[in-house]
Amino acid sequence: MQKIEHIGIAVKNLEESNALFAKLLNTVHYKTEEVPSEGVITSFFKVGEVKIELLQATQPDSPISRFIETKGEGIHHIAFAVDDVNTELARLQAAGFEAIHDTPKEGADQKIIAFLHPKSTQRVLTEICSDSHATK
Amino acid sequence: MQKIEHIGIAVKNLEESNALFAKLLNTVHYKTEEVPSEGVITSFFKVGEVKIELLQATQPDSPISRFIETKGEGIHHIAFAVDDVNTELARLQAAGFEAIHDTPKEGADQKIIAFLHPKSTQRVLTEICSDSHATK
Repeated sequence: MQKIEHIGIAVKNLEESNALFAKLLNTVHYKTEEVPSEGVITSFFKVGEVKIELLQATQPDSPISRFIETKGEGIHHIAFAVDDVNTELARLQAAGFEAIHDTPKEGADQKIIAFLHPKSTQRVLTEICSDSHATK
Repeated sequence: MQKIEHIGIAVKNLEESNALFAKLLNTVHYKTEEVPSEGVITSFFKVGEVKIELLQATQPDSPISRFIETKGEGIHHIAFAVDDVNTELARLQAAGFEAIHDTPKEGADQKIIAFLHPKSTQRVLTEICSDSHATK
């Protein structure tokens, strides 16, 4: 794990949350990106070397919709930057962690990503990611 | 906000969690510290510029005990490093955020800390902190 790449926060209304987090972080979001395959629209803030990623569902059956239905808004996941997602996922699986999907996939922000199941990480939903060009 | 100083994770058993997070983060915790006033014992890992702080309750009525009772283990708070906690807390209160305690107090890791109430931060429990020598 090189560093924490971003912290994902589930929100109901991206526009309202962009305004709230701009006041909280004292900086404005620098981009917005939709990821249709995940059913989310995201916005990004930068604090030091870490990004704060706000996530609003665009579909009622998306993972963020289900998270908010059961747990409400709040911190959704931590994403760690790694050199190569495939190598790190293999290390983690060998160490006993369970992947949500065995094959890394494309995420927001030009990343290749994989999620570990929170039941194997003490309920901390954990993403690992690397730049998509690094694994191609 | 200079950077994310640490991410706090509530755990039931610090020893077991130290072992789990050592495997996850591929690094061992570098210190353990008890904060009797908060009813917690903590351990710290470092990933890039950010610390991961595991928190185990030492008293049944401590904030971490109550968090685990209602929500289970998992991500508890995000702490942001600021130049001066008093100045930043005043800025945040003026911007409409609610402090859990109006006066900053001593936390773990030689920090002066203040928490914002999660009802004013979209359920993201937010800490601000600065080095204790910086405000003395």
